[in-house]
Amino acid sequence: MDFLFNPRSVAVVGASNKEGKIGYEIMNSLIASRDRIKIYPVNPNEREIFSLKSYPNVSSIPESIDLMVISLQAQNIPDVIEEGAVKGVKGAIIISGGFGELGDEGKLLEKRISEISNRYGIRVVGPNCIGVFSSRSKFDTFFQARDAMKRPGDGPVAFMTQSGTYGVTLLELMEKHHIGVSKFISFGNKVDINEIDMLEYFMSDNDTKIISGYLESFRDGRKFFEMSREVSHEKPVIILKAGKTREGQIAAKSHTGALAENYSVYEGAMKQSGVITVDDIEDMVDIIKILAKQPLPSGGKILMITNGAGPCVVTADEIGRSRKLKLANLDDDEKEEIKKILPDFAIVSNPLDLTGSATPEWYMDVMEKIKNSKNVDIFVLYFVIPNAPIYRNIHKLYELFSKNWNRPVIAVMSGGSFTEDVSDNLEKMNIPVITTARRLVNALEKIVEYSEWKSNSH
Amino acid sequence: MDFLFNPRSVAVVGASNKEGKIGYEIMNSLIASRDRIKIYPVNPNEREIFSLKSYPNVSSIPESIDLMVISLQAQNIPDVIEEGAVKGVKGAIIISGGFGELGDEGKLLEKRISEISNRYGIRVVGPNCIGVFSSRSKFDTFFQARDAMKRPGDGPVAFMTQSGTYGVTLLELMEKHHIGVSKFISFGNKVDINEIDMLEYFMSDNDTKIISGYLESFRDGRKFFEMSREVSHEKPVIILKAGKTREGQIAAKSHTGALAENYSVYEGAMKQSGVITVDDIEDMVDIIKILAKQPLPSGGKILMITNGAGPCVVTADEIGRSRKLKLANLDDDEKEEIKKILPDFAIVSNPLDLTGSATPEWYMDVMEKIKNSKNVDIFVLYFVIPNAPIYRNIHKLYELFSKNWNRPVIAVMSGGSFTEDVSDNLEKMNIPVITTARRLVNALEKIVEYSEWKSNSH
Repeated sequence: MDFLFNPRSVAVVGASNKEGKIGYEIMNSLIASRDRIKIYPVNPNEREIFSLKSYPNVSSIPESIDLMVISLQAQNIPDVIEEGAVKGVKGAIIISGGFGELGDEGKLLEKRISEISNRYGIRVVGPNCIGVFSSRSKFDTFFQARDAMKRPGDGPVAFMTQSGTYGVTLLELMEKHHIGVSKFISFGNKVDINEIDMLEYFMSDNDTKIISGYLESFRDGRKFFEMSREVSHEKPVIILKAGKTREGQIAAKSHTGALAENYSVYEGAMKQSGVITVDDIEDMVDIIKILAKQPLPSGGKILMITNGAGPCVVTADEIGRSRKLKLANLDDDEKEEIKKILPDFAIVSNPLDLTGSATPEWYMDVMEKIKNSKNVDIFVLYFVIPNAPIYRNIHKLYELFSKNWNRPVIAVMSGGSFTEDVSDNLEKMNIPVITTARRLVNALEKIVEYSEWKSNSH
Repeated sequence: MDFLFNPRSVAVVGASNKEGKIGYEIMNSLIASRDRIKIYPVNPNEREIFSLKSYPNVSSIPESIDLMVISLQAQNIPDVIEEGAVKGVKGAIIISGGFGELGDEGKLLEKRISEISNRYGIRVVGPNCIGVFSSRSKFDTFFQARDAMKRPGDGPVAFMTQSGTYGVTLLELMEKHHIGVSKFISFGNKVDINEIDMLEYFMSDNDTKIISGYLESFRDGRKFFEMSREVSHEKPVIILKAGKTREGQIAAKSHTGALAENYSVYEGAMKQSGVITVDDIEDMVDIIKILAKQPLPSGGKILMITNGAGPCVVTADEIGRSRKLKLANLDDDEKEEIKKILPDFAIVSNPLDLTGSATPEWYMDVMEKIKNSKNVDIFVLYFVIPNAPIYRNIHKLYELFSKNWNRPVIAVMSGGSFTEDVSDNLEKMNIPVITTARRLVNALEKIVEYSEWKSNSH
């Protein structure tokens, strides 16, 4: 399916000269690739679009076309697909909505497209989607301009989605948190290309190390879970599956035409297949952050080190309710070693409370003492960044995090613009920064569960 | 207790000339108030601190003192408090730790302070805290400098906390989201002043409209709940109570010396008293945002309007699991009215999916049709901001939100820097912006529960 992510030639059917029209915005995104990809606007009412000759239809384009990107009224689309298929076009991305999500009439249009796809072998993405993005070929079909929606750089994360909205959000959050994206596909009502095709593709895609997705329905649940079980040994699969309740299923039906499914059955199957399931997009981003920036933890024993223990108390509460996580217990010897290097008022427990007087060196000295402790699987370092001994020695904080501590290391902080700047710098250094106790425990619980699954199911 | 928030004279015991020392940083924060408040550094080893004469002890200050702020070794503090009490000082804020959180010896020091406070009537804040902040008198005792920790402006929110860390975080998030704070108090181990004193004070404080707090223990649970029941009729009370599980209770004990309590009993009591309980600091901020910026909803019927329905499907899922929220059902007449003004591919349901083609005017036109609908209690407007028809007409979006829609209005969006700028502008306009479906439903569930409690318990 490389022609989707790295086409040599693209026809934009429904291209437009009118700013704000979807067919204008797609051209606007694509035009940045014109030096690498041949772009052919198709619109019978225009002679030129973005200074390129406009063709009345796809057949009249004199050269071969890898991919059509289509923004037209729904009822005109099946004929365009067939025309492209006859010409030998390999794939079509249907951005437009107006299909199965509207009811029976739209379902019929989808059926026609599906038949054409089967008959000619043309692969179809959508309808009702925002299309594809590849960081490597710097190619996308979005109707969101680059100054309003930043594209992420190259990297390990693939995302497939039935919701263009979540696509935009996830890509922008990846960019914000300095995590690269390999390939992205929004397949909307997925009349043809679906999660099974993409799972297979991402599995063998060398650029992809983490597979994530937002789904409202499964095309073939059993097959998806079988494949997930295989993929998950190599690459974590993180899924936000909507349509969990009757209310969600009704909403999903009018969004992508998704049929109601019994989520509790699927949830069990996903768990058994090693799939990491999440309930919300921020939870997904937190998990991706940790997986993309740090090694997989070998267990759930967490040591908290802090200069302000409130969030650690809430973390301990959440760990008390978790199934997979435990508070790490340092040996008495280890505690004695640490006590020697800290002032009397520090509390050598878990959390290891250095108090508001702590400088980054205190963290560093403690970490040096226990970096090889067999009692710790994950180091979580909490910071009140505006505390004077921290912010006046902030370069030392970066030093602390530039060392290799032989375990996953996570930072926790939340605050204003100064704290956000520090957080941003740490994320550039591949330290995942999580904002709150609840989010930390939620993410680690699922990551440790996945790690256990992986080591038990070999 | 106005002398805490608006003192005429403050002695800083343990003031220092050494940058990075807590006694330096407190002076650094206080010095900004020197034109309104008389400041007296106390340190026998210095002649001048911040160009002010330094006194060897509190008794030697020739004028009367409202408040002492103390940063010293723990064992020296009881004597200082007694010395101040004899001089007639009204209140003392003990920033230093090294007390009950360390064990029995520290508990004894606290007991001595408590006895002195009882004998002389001097009120004590702390120990083990960051002290107080008042936006109106522009006064604070923080050892976090203003360039590293932004102080919020004047406004309705009061916050009391046993954790200075959560204090810093909450104040900075209030500032970030353009919500004003009336008074703030961090009381740490609360040897004297505690949540009951503050609840009483905030209840009668005209600047305070919303009361929030982070607690690790209750001094007198029964009294707190009785008072909460009274306060909650006038002002919402939002509490993050830590120490819910054994793990959390152990952590709380080594943080503020808090004793273990049966949280499930307290949770029920809080609910009955109208207290809004939360599990995490971001959840608290979301709730405060909505309460501070919008009227209280009269019910839980939610209408979602969107240009990208993925997050609405997840919202519907969460509503399906909630006890207090429902999807609003528009009348057939209302739906017909809306259909007339929208293109065929829009989906007039709940979510009301305007699709990616929607401009802000589409939202506006729909809102005009249903702003008085009896079927809707809360309008939630979702946006994919980078969609061309939105971002190319962004001024119209602000127009949409500048109108009064007769109901609480909430915006949902999440993305990169352009979206964050829009979000920031909306929050300046008093529109609460929530990032995700889970957070939205969590906040609204608790707000609607409070609203019901309020109308049922009069």
